Amino acid sequence: MKKIIILGSTGSIGTQAVEIALKHSDKYQVVAVSTNKNVSLANEQASKLGCKVYQGAGQIEGLLDLEADIVLNALVGSVGLEATLKVLKSGKILALANKESLVAGGEIINKHFKDKKSGILPVDSEHSAIFQLLHGENKEEINNIIITASGGPFRESSLEQMKKATTSAALAHPRWNMGPKITIDSATLVNKGLEVMEAHYLFDVPYEQIKVIIHPESIIHSMVEFVDGSVKAHLGPTDMRVPIQYALSFPKRAKAPAGFSDFIKLGKLNFEAVDYKKFKALELAYEAGRKKAGYPVVFNGANEVAVAAFLQEKINLTSITEIIEQVMQEHETCDASELPVVKELDAWSKKRAAEIVREMIK
Amino acid sequence: MKKIIILGSTGSIGTQAVEIALKHSDKYQVVAVSTNKNVSLANEQASKLGCKVYQGAGQIEGLLDLEADIVLNALVGSVGLEATLKVLKSGKILALANKESLVAGGEIINKHFKDKKSGILPVDSEHSAIFQLLHGENKEEINNIIITASGGPFRESSLEQMKKATTSAALAHPRWNMGPKITIDSATLVNKGLEVMEAHYLFDVPYEQIKVIIHPESIIHSMVEFVDGSVKAHLGPTDMRVPIQYALSFPKRAKAPAGFSDFIKLGKLNFEAVDYKKFKALELAYEAGRKKAGYPVVFNGANEVAVAAFLQEKINLTSITEIIEQVMQEHETCDASELPVVKELDAWSKKRAAEIVREMIK
Repeated sequence: MKKIIILGSTGSIGTQAVEIALKHSDKYQVVAVSTNKNVSLANEQASKLGCKVYQGAGQIEGLLDLEADIVLNALVGSVGLEATLKVLKSGKILALANKESLVAGGEIINKHFKDKKSGILPVDSEHSAIFQLLHGENKEEINNIIITASGGPFRESSLEQMKKATTSAALAHPRWNMGPKITIDSATLVNKGLEVMEAHYLFDVPYEQIKVIIHPESIIHSMVEFVDGSVKAHLGPTDMRVPIQYALSFPKRAKAPAGFSDFIKLGKLNFEAVDYKKFKALELAYEAGRKKAGYPVVFNGANEVAVAAFLQEKINLTSITEIIEQVMQEHETCDASELPVVKELDAWSKKRAAEIVREMIK
Repeated sequence: MKKIIILGSTGSIGTQAVEIALKHSDKYQVVAVSTNKNVSLANEQASKLGCKVYQGAGQIEGLLDLEADIVLNALVGSVGLEATLKVLKSGKILALANKESLVAGGEIINKHFKDKKSGILPVDSEHSAIFQLLHGENKEEINNIIITASGGPFRESSLEQMKKATTSAALAHPRWNMGPKITIDSATLVNKGLEVMEAHYLFDVPYEQIKVIIHPESIIHSMVEFVDGSVKAHLGPTDMRVPIQYALSFPKRAKAPAGFSDFIKLGKLNFEAVDYKKFKALELAYEAGRKKAGYPVVFNGANEVAVAAFLQEKINLTSITEIIEQVMQEHETCDASELPVVKELDAWSKKRAAEIVREMIK
């Protein structure tokens, strides 16, 4: 019986993890769930699971004192970073669904927890794919990591059309059923940018060897190309329960939570190049990644505020990228391998982004 | 320095293996090559490689007395089976390009060399793909092995058109550059049938869990579907040097012998169901496999003679399948886990196929 703690159990990833745990109650025992605000849902989950409920970020230490094999960090946003560092410190296995942990915390983890990185099980479908594709392979023989992107709802739209996109259009992701923040990030390809940075920190592969390719069907979740020309791809249903369950069941695989792919019915898998003019955010993400230090933190912080402003219908979708770019331009590089600096940078970038939003509204 | 013996160095696989060995002379030392008839080419190879030449099947024992790490069995046809058994007995690693070894010798290997199967490195692109995809995975968690087939030159032809196919049309394989026997086997899908049986014996997966899918581009070399719905695929250039080199370099990977795939240039990968009415040989292969014992031997022996007759323009392409079917119908099941029985069955099926050919010509 695997004992699991779920941080952020009431979000999109968290609720699916609870569902999996309930379905496989012979394999998993959830010992605690945590939520930020949705206490009623968390209480409901806890009564079904027979576990404890913790509320708010301040409770994480207490949570980690519990006996558990694995902690699923399904917190949304940069609040998840502190939880990640605490889990790594605790020595528990970390199933990581919080992207910001690696984006904003990549330098901290590399400095302080380099030896603990093997205890991170990625929950993102792309990183779970890459993680699985690297089984039995030598990292030195990777030629390229190829991350697939569906292209989001505006793949076939013009930049002009994207400018005028409503929140409901941007929230209508063609392939994946996800929370609102990540869905908007998918529409701007910021999400893919965060994934590129995550892959860099998770697999220690330089940015020159991480490529993004548009694959509208999202059936291929990512690929790894090796030095001999062999490519391994991971394919399957576009359903987050698959990678969530894999992180919980690793190194084993449990019964398919979302069925199987029918390749004959699919008929074909398409590939396209990324239009970096339309999706400039991805170019900015590579720039932030390569400049490293504080840049990924700032990229992420500015985006978080800009997305919230877009969801509140204060700004255009394309303004998100403009805001990230401006905040990145104002940032002066600094070492970002200590949590206080990262928190400060995160706060600064959010403050600046909020100010830019206010200027835009005027 | 890896010491290599190449059996059948003057065939399609053999010459490419020699090319790879010459290119990586810092990694591989070919200690001997063997040929059936093409002594002049073998001598030329030996002078470049600085190694010995052996001629004819009777020399294999002498060859295996040589000190070597790996023996590449690139012999064509059922003559390769005896070589395979001798290599397995010698305890040397076997890079296996001879399909008939597993098809006709599967029961022998399972009875006498079950513990040596892990020392077999498949050279076929499909089996090399599956072998690579299983790294770090549990065989018990395989849901299906999905072997891809290009569909050959007659994928879009009618059965009537196939009947009238010339040898040159059948030899014009759209994707792979291979020897004549295997190219004809690809046109009838007999080759895919042999691969299904090979996969069964190599990976110990039941026939119900081995599927064939038409994938005209041949970029995906095969896939493995796991119980959780995850699918791993192996992709790359359609060039036999890639799997040949992998078998020689395993567990490492060497520099790409045939470049890299450009997925954006490819644009798409297509899938279709197999038309079992048109490619009845594949259905017969499954039948032979499921009935096991002597049936795979007979399937293979009858096909070998029928293909030779087609290449000599004595019979139609579609008659190959008819001949296999008739010889299979006449066969009475028997245990086929001892070499003398297999040799007898092989000889009988070839004799019967030759007789049927003669009746057809009349």
